[in-house]
Amino acid sequence: MQDQIRTVAVIGCGVIGASWACLFPSRGLNVLIYDPAEGVQKMFERYLQNAWPALAALMPVEGVWAKNYKFIDNLESSLSEADFIQENGPERPEFKQALMETLDQYSRPGVVISSSSSGLPASKFIGRCQKDPSRILRHHDINDPDFYRSLGKKPILLRHEVPGFVANRLQAAINSEAYSLVSRGIVSAEDLDTAVTSGPGLRWALTGPFVTNSLGGGGGPNGFTQRIERLGPAIRAWEEDMLKHRFDWSEESVSVLKEEASKWLDSVDWDGVVGKRDQMLLSLLEVNSRTSKL
Amino acid sequence: MQDQIRTVAVIGCGVIGASWACLFPSRGLNVLIYDPAEGVQKMFERYLQNAWPALAALMPVEGVWAKNYKFIDNLESSLSEADFIQENGPERPEFKQALMETLDQYSRPGVVISSSSSGLPASKFIGRCQKDPSRILRHHDINDPDFYRSLGKKPILLRHEVPGFVANRLQAAINSEAYSLVSRGIVSAEDLDTAVTSGPGLRWALTGPFVTNSLGGGGGPNGFTQRIERLGPAIRAWEEDMLKHRFDWSEESVSVLKEEASKWLDSVDWDGVVGKRDQMLLSLLEVNSRTSKL
Repeated sequence: MQDQIRTVAVIGCGVIGASWACLFPSRGLNVLIYDPAEGVQKMFERYLQNAWPALAALMPVEGVWAKNYKFIDNLESSLSEADFIQENGPERPEFKQALMETLDQYSRPGVVISSSSSGLPASKFIGRCQKDPSRILRHHDINDPDFYRSLGKKPILLRHEVPGFVANRLQAAINSEAYSLVSRGIVSAEDLDTAVTSGPGLRWALTGPFVTNSLGGGGGPNGFTQRIERLGPAIRAWEEDMLKHRFDWSEESVSVLKEEASKWLDSVDWDGVVGKRDQMLLSLLEVNSRTSKL
Repeated sequence: MQDQIRTVAVIGCGVIGASWACLFPSRGLNVLIYDPAEGVQKMFERYLQNAWPALAALMPVEGVWAKNYKFIDNLESSLSEADFIQENGPERPEFKQALMETLDQYSRPGVVISSSSSGLPASKFIGRCQKDPSRILRHHDINDPDFYRSLGKKPILLRHEVPGFVANRLQAAINSEAYSLVSRGIVSAEDLDTAVTSGPGLRWALTGPFVTNSLGGGGGPNGFTQRIERLGPAIRAWEEDMLKHRFDWSEESVSVLKEEASKWLDSVDWDGVVGKRDQMLLSLLEVNSRTSKL
């Protein structure tokens, strides 16, 4: 499939869309970008300028490719040029349903429309598509993942639809407990971040929850069972306590949370952290690519 | 405090205890190790041999220090030699209560007894201590963290007792959702691990949940609030669904979980992964030490 894809349309150029619109040209693809927001092209160009060195460090990139993008004003007349559509609209079901209807109507039949939704299952937004809804997919539960694999991504297979998919549910789980601990005054937001970055976060870039659990249980294929059996009762007691004190999203809790968060976030050197993050991501991705099979 | 500490007693030499018993000598301290389990000295020496090169890569280490440990048979008669006690007994409140009573009785007054409990608050195990229970602490909520800081650790402050403390509650949160997704057949254990190691796990070694959330919300100190406001409703819906399908620890669920986990864990190259993990941990710790303040 990926050999026939020369031109990709990126619909919506916010945080997610901009990152796709940088990645595609870095792999030699032409990109059409559509986003009606004001000033979006200028913002994207700044983003691209910052991201390009990191992309070049990750894989062979030709300098001219950085110009392989075009902002389009008229979605309807340009969509037929696209061999693949990456949708990154707002996370609102009604909006996405209308957008999907347009994309389906004006693109060539058979061209894949892949949604970057953070958590909406496809069944929530394909309802109004008349032409060829079967080619619409969430890019996490993609049937033919070769196109994404050719971009250096690692697709996973979801056997059933779930809201939030896998990575975002796992993030929501850790965030929810983090919000609870900080809003209850157990720990500062800064110390909570440290507990992750100097603790389990050091492992999760190489070993996911299952392999990490096994290593914690003494390693090897039986480590997982051993950990479950040895620590299971203790873990259940922690889970009960966590459930009892679950972050409730009340106005008061959210307000305390924001206040506690800002005590830490106001002191962060944001330019520095983005640079360091990109540097770290690149070295981690490089180690990861050498160890694709653990 | 740390200047007066020359000899540390390590009580219990399982996975956690052995790692303390390697770290202390690598910082020039003498270690007394007590563990009544059979064959424990041989196991420890194999562990030390494997760990020493990594410790030496992390900080300046003198070769002779690797011999600065002694296994003791009689806890009562040797405890008075210790300037600091690191307790790593089994995670059972009754057992720990009796152990703490012994440690308190036979150690010098004022010597800190620090527990490595995974999740038991100190109030659950100091009840029978007669001599000086005020010097007993969980090493996560330590009052004077300078000793641990001198070992290269990053102490955090817990303002109130909570079962599981911070890092283990956060791990329990992510594990619980991971167990649910895999036991429900949504995703394979291998793909779940990939979702972490190729997803948020790539960030958590540098940026904890709060900084990661801010970057996801566009960066800067306001990114956190923006993310909460923009994605909040979607996240709450995911959380509701996660709660509804919460891993229930029933015999059947645990059995399916173990079976699904073993499909993945049986294929892992365990010697390889431990080597790669240590290599990655060292380079991450090195980056982290350069960026202690983000």
